[in-house]
Amino acid sequence: MTSSDLYPVSRLAAVREATAKAGVDALLLTPGPDLRYVSGYDAKPLERLTCLVVPAAADPYMMVPRLELPAAQASPASRLGLEFVAWDETDDPYRIAADRLGPVGKVGVADRMWAMASLRFRDVLPDTEQVLAGSVLRELRMRKSPAEVAALREAGEAIDAVHRQVPGFLRAGRTEREVARDIAEAILATGHATVDFTIVASGPNGASPHHDVSDRVIQAGEPVVVDIGGQMPSGYCSDSTRTYCVGEPPADFAAYYEVLRRAQDAACAAVRPGVSCESIDAAARDIIAEAGYGDHFIHRTGHGIGVEGHEDPYIVAGNGEPLEPGFAFSIEPGIYLQGSHGARIEDIVVCTESGADRLNATTRELVVV
Amino acid sequence: MTSSDLYPVSRLAAVREATAKAGVDALLLTPGPDLRYVSGYDAKPLERLTCLVVPAAADPYMMVPRLELPAAQASPASRLGLEFVAWDETDDPYRIAADRLGPVGKVGVADRMWAMASLRFRDVLPDTEQVLAGSVLRELRMRKSPAEVAALREAGEAIDAVHRQVPGFLRAGRTEREVARDIAEAILATGHATVDFTIVASGPNGASPHHDVSDRVIQAGEPVVVDIGGQMPSGYCSDSTRTYCVGEPPADFAAYYEVLRRAQDAACAAVRPGVSCESIDAAARDIIAEAGYGDHFIHRTGHGIGVEGHEDPYIVAGNGEPLEPGFAFSIEPGIYLQGSHGARIEDIVVCTESGADRLNATTRELVVV
Repeated sequence: MTSSDLYPVSRLAAVREATAKAGVDALLLTPGPDLRYVSGYDAKPLERLTCLVVPAAADPYMMVPRLELPAAQASPASRLGLEFVAWDETDDPYRIAADRLGPVGKVGVADRMWAMASLRFRDVLPDTEQVLAGSVLRELRMRKSPAEVAALREAGEAIDAVHRQVPGFLRAGRTEREVARDIAEAILATGHATVDFTIVASGPNGASPHHDVSDRVIQAGEPVVVDIGGQMPSGYCSDSTRTYCVGEPPADFAAYYEVLRRAQDAACAAVRPGVSCESIDAAARDIIAEAGYGDHFIHRTGHGIGVEGHEDPYIVAGNGEPLEPGFAFSIEPGIYLQGSHGARIEDIVVCTESGADRLNATTRELVVV
Repeated sequence: MTSSDLYPVSRLAAVREATAKAGVDALLLTPGPDLRYVSGYDAKPLERLTCLVVPAAADPYMMVPRLELPAAQASPASRLGLEFVAWDETDDPYRIAADRLGPVGKVGVADRMWAMASLRFRDVLPDTEQVLAGSVLRELRMRKSPAEVAALREAGEAIDAVHRQVPGFLRAGRTEREVARDIAEAILATGHATVDFTIVASGPNGASPHHDVSDRVIQAGEPVVVDIGGQMPSGYCSDSTRTYCVGEPPADFAAYYEVLRRAQDAACAAVRPGVSCESIDAAARDIIAEAGYGDHFIHRTGHGIGVEGHEDPYIVAGNGEPLEPGFAFSIEPGIYLQGSHGARIEDIVVCTESGADRLNATTRELVVV
C-alpha cells in the first residue's frame, strides 16, 4: 500500500466535480481528515494557516507557512501538481487566500476547521456563505476503495495484536491507568502512529461507555471493558472493544454478556448493501430489548471509520441511509448496569456485496484472565 | 498541585466578568484548551456536542451527550456548581442550547471549535454574531498563576528528563523514526499524558524548522535538531529543543551554533515586565543578523504556552504587547542552512519581576554524542 493507492491523484478531480455538483464554489481544507483525504498531506493543525483551496472552476493551490513549505513539498500533496503559496510570518494568509480566490458565493470549510480560521475567512470573505466541506466530501469518503479497505484491515490486525496482549496486562491489584499505559505502548509497538484512546473501565466504571481511565484498582471478579484504537501511519484508524473478566464473572454479568454477544453477531449478520443504517442498529437493539436490557443500551450501535475515528455513516435510529459496498463502520452494542459493571463488543466491518467483512478477529467469547 | 489550584472555582466568575466587559453575551466552549482552562474538564473532542455555555448575565450550564455525563460529573467541572444538560442520541443539542440561551447579540466561540459545531450554532442562532472566545480569554490565559507556573515547571522537568536520554538514542545508522519512537516512549515514561511532537531532523532535514521525522538514516558527523513536547496530566504542556551532533560537527555548523547560543541567551536576558514581545524577538534576531545569518532565521522567536502548546503571546515582529509577570513562552531562535543542516535552541521561560525564569535546564552547549 502506497500513498498513491490510498490517496490517488485522481481523487482531486473527483472532489472538484463533487464540489461543482454541490453548488459550492471552493473548498477550504485546513489540516485534518478532510485535507488528508483529498491530498494525502498529514499536516499538523497549528495556529499558522495551512489551507488547500480547491475552487470548483479554477486551479487548486495550498496556502503554507513558509517554514512548513519543505514539509508540504515532501508530502503526498506534491504529486497533485498544485501551487504552494508560501506566506511569511508577518503576512495575512487569509487575505492572500481571499484575494486569489476572488468573489465567491459559497465555500465549503473543513468540518474540523478551527473557529480561529473559519471566522478569519468569514472576515475576509464577508459576502460568502460557509457550509461544511463534509456536505461535498461525505459521499466520497464513505465509499472506501480497495486500498482504503486494505489500510483499515491492516489497522484492524494491529489493534487485534494489542487485544491479544491485554490478558497479560490485566490483573487484580493493578490500576486502570497502569493497564492503559501498557496498552498505549503496545498500540505504538504494533505499528500505530498515534494512540487515540485507551479506555480501561473496570467494575462500575464499565457502566460508563466513555469512561477513560482512572486510578481505580482492579478487583478480582470484575469485568473490564477495554476499548482501544489509534491511527496508523497510513492515516487509517483502528477501534476495537473487548470485555474481559479478571477471574470468574458475576452471574448477572455472564447472563447479559451472552445477550450482548448475540446482539453484536446479529447486527453484523444484518449488514448488506441496501440495508439502512438504522436497521443495523435495530438488529442489535431488538435482541437486547427482548432480553430485558433495552434501557441499558444507551448509545448508538456504531460510527463510520476511515481517516477519522468517527465519521459518516452513523449506525443510529433515524439514519435511513442505505449501506453500500465499501462503507466501513463499527458495530459496538453495549449493556451497562449503573453501579455494577458493563460490557461492550466492537468490531469494524466493511459492507461487501456478500455481507459484512469483519476486520477484527479476536474472540468475542468472554475472556477470563 | 491539585485541580483546584490549577483550575480554581473562582476562575468562572473572572471569566464571566471579562465576558461582560468585552460586550459578549455568552461563551460557547467546546472541548479544547478554552474549555479546560475555564472548567478543568479535559473533554474529548468528538462529533457529539459537549459545550460549556457561559452567559455573561445568567447561570452557566454544560451541554453533555448522555453517555459522557458520568465523565463530566467526575471531572473538575463538577465543582463549579453548574447544571449538566444531558442530551440523547436522537436530540438536537444545538437547538436545545440555543433555546436555553434565548436571543443574544454576540457569542464567543472556543478558538478551536470545529466548523461542524460553529456552523450549527450559526444555523440555530442566525442573528447572533460569532467572535472568538480568545478575545475574552486571552488576557486571563496569558497571566499564569503560581500554580500554572508550577505545572509548567513540572512539564519542563519532565521534558528535560527526556532530553537527557536523547544521547543514548542517537547514533549513526539509526533512522529518525527509530529515534523518535524511543523519544515518544520516554515522553510517556517521564509522566506526560500525551506525546504532542517528536521532531528528529538530521543533517539537511534540520534546515526545515518543522520537519517531523522520516526514514532517513542518521550519518556520522551530522547535527540533529530534536524538538519535543507533550501534555502533562495537569493539562500543561512541555516544549524544548536541543541540537545534538553525532560525532564531530562540521566546521561551518560549529561556527553558527555559537552565534545561536548567544542569540538565545540574549533573548532570555531581555525578558522583563514592560518589554515588548517584538523586542524579545529582536534581541535574538539582531545577534544572528549581525553574524551574517539573518536570512537563515526564518521564523518568529517564540510562542506562548500553557494548556495549549502554542498560544498567546507570540514573540514576533509586529507584536508590541508588553510582557507581564506570569507570561510564559518559548524562546527558540534557529539558524537553517538549506541543503546542509540547521540548529535550534528552545527553552520555555516565565516572565518574573526580576527577569526570565527558565523552565528548561539541560545544557545549551552543543552535545556531541
